Amino acid sequence: MPELRKDPIIDRWVIISTERAQRPVFLAEQEAPPKAGLCPLCAGNEAMTPPEVFAIRPGGASSEPNTPGWTLRVVPNKFPALRIEGALNKEGVGLYDRMNGIGAHEVIVETPLHGQTLYTMDVASVQNVFIAYKERTIDLLRDKRFKFIMIFKNHGGVAGASLDHAHSQLIALPIVPRRVFEEINGGLNYYKYKDRCVFCDILAQEAEDGSRVIYENEAYVALSPFAARFPFETWILPKNHVASFLASGNEDNYYALADALSVILKKNNKVLNAPPYNYMIHTSPADLTSVPYYHWHIEIIPRLTKTAGFEWGTGFYINPTPPELATTFLREVSPPEGA
Amino acid sequence: MPELRKDPIIDRWVIISTERAQRPVFLAEQEAPPKAGLCPLCAGNEAMTPPEVFAIRPGGASSEPNTPGWTLRVVPNKFPALRIEGALNKEGVGLYDRMNGIGAHEVIVETPLHGQTLYTMDVASVQNVFIAYKERTIDLLRDKRFKFIMIFKNHGGVAGASLDHAHSQLIALPIVPRRVFEEINGGLNYYKYKDRCVFCDILAQEAEDGSRVIYENEAYVALSPFAARFPFETWILPKNHVASFLASGNEDNYYALADALSVILKKNNKVLNAPPYNYMIHTSPADLTSVPYYHWHIEIIPRLTKTAGFEWGTGFYINPTPPELATTFLREVSPPEGA
Repeated sequence: MPELRKDPIIDRWVIISTERAQRPVFLAEQEAPPKAGLCPLCAGNEAMTPPEVFAIRPGGASSEPNTPGWTLRVVPNKFPALRIEGALNKEGVGLYDRMNGIGAHEVIVETPLHGQTLYTMDVASVQNVFIAYKERTIDLLRDKRFKFIMIFKNHGGVAGASLDHAHSQLIALPIVPRRVFEEINGGLNYYKYKDRCVFCDILAQEAEDGSRVIYENEAYVALSPFAARFPFETWILPKNHVASFLASGNEDNYYALADALSVILKKNNKVLNAPPYNYMIHTSPADLTSVPYYHWHIEIIPRLTKTAGFEWGTGFYINPTPPELATTFLREVSPPEGA
Repeated sequence: MPELRKDPIIDRWVIISTERAQRPVFLAEQEAPPKAGLCPLCAGNEAMTPPEVFAIRPGGASSEPNTPGWTLRVVPNKFPALRIEGALNKEGVGLYDRMNGIGAHEVIVETPLHGQTLYTMDVASVQNVFIAYKERTIDLLRDKRFKFIMIFKNHGGVAGASLDHAHSQLIALPIVPRRVFEEINGGLNYYKYKDRCVFCDILAQEAEDGSRVIYENEAYVALSPFAARFPFETWILPKNHVASFLASGNEDNYYALADALSVILKKNNKVLNAPPYNYMIHTSPADLTSVPYYHWHIEIIPRLTKTAGFEWGTGFYINPTPPELATTFLREVSPPEGA
């Protein structure tokens, strides 16, 4: 019997096909081979991007900005969805509302090496990615026009990446998106009723139940959410209550987080054959950094199924892989040492 | 300068790249060739599907159920997302909520001919599709467990179709999905404030403005919505206020609706090279069939872009084709006569 399950945060229902107990046959679609030609994100091609706004250069002063010698580099997007210059000019057009597309759109180049990916990078290199997210967020939030910084990664063409070279993106927005509001409001409603954080309650229940916990270290838990929308959807949450991604860097500079993400990606690589995927950092908006009712986390979505008319029309998802089954498969493989 | 626009019904913002004034380069991805082998939806293969629950058979009594002679046929889905038998058994699991996956999942086979599609069918055949939607909805709503009937179409593998043969689908749900609730609530909030239907106000403003109206006949308007999420997204709405899809059949048995959908699909075919697409019928739930604050409509989404991490994380869309530009391109092509 299929099952309907409700996400406890935003009242989103999903259909889980709990009866398919056999091993899932999902294997990532084979991507087209990388395009030939110069890669603008490779070391040596720094002139092909706008000037960098942040870089990690282990050589220190021996390495000039916009020259090789970096291990991570952040540059403005050459084709930005939003522009940094100008005023918002909010206005009504009859019953409609519009404003200028003011914002920032940056690319975090995660490695100088073209063939490397987060699947294969070591924990220290993944840690650098999180450090870059934090540094850029702090810098951009000095601009009071920005209300929310969305950090996300598209890996593979199926997941929306237009470049092969490993990178993630950041978009600074002048408004808080509705999806973020929904989560914040969901958390707030639960808090009003229970005086507890819904995410903290989820963590407590999952720790006791155990059937959806894929991995944990001293500071983070990776789990298959009860109402997972997609096969092998995984969330990584800090064990302690922290509303903002920024605050989590204070303890260990994101080392434990990098460890957890690294383990999950290596497991996905092994079980699902290096699938295309997206991840998104869900964090509190700029003016709600330490609220008791929101709990930041990462949502990782391997792109194994297609969304279609039913999902667009209803906001309802059909997930053919029960999260308990995904957990079993992911738990039983150990990530390979090193790569 | 890119522009941020807000959907007036559900407060969804989109980023519209209004500056790209050149002709869009979208051409539909070429789909893989149809799979070889017997098609379970073709005339003559009726035994390959569960027994039909509805059919249009012009031959009348000379054609037995589950034999050839039909022009349209509705069958239960062989691999249903939800099951018709059983009780809901709603229950809590700690802080989570679940119920059994009770519902109906049917396939509307739109033509007996394998090569035919809604792009090429005549208006009378498209009209039959809407008549089938209505008949099946009325029948399923006799079952009081069902609160909402979602009718949708996935055309092409990119849009989620797993069979080539032209078909649409219907899922009867035991709950009203949140996406539907959002629209209903958005309409209700507007109505409380203005004492008017927001969709009727949109129609009035669009008729006066004219820059986003693609086509109209005596009863329907097809327009590019002001805050379109996707390139060439098109909505078809009845000109008069009607909350429920079912009620619109009373006047002309959906002939004018079939004309409008047919014209839009033929235009999409010509401008966008027969793209994969989804459409969804947005209608009021079973117990709100004649409310003054909701207005049923069809949303048609050609699948030309990929949704990625930003959209998943924010519910915010980036649309590279301004709706006014899409309107211009679609308006200037006339659908070919006949096919």
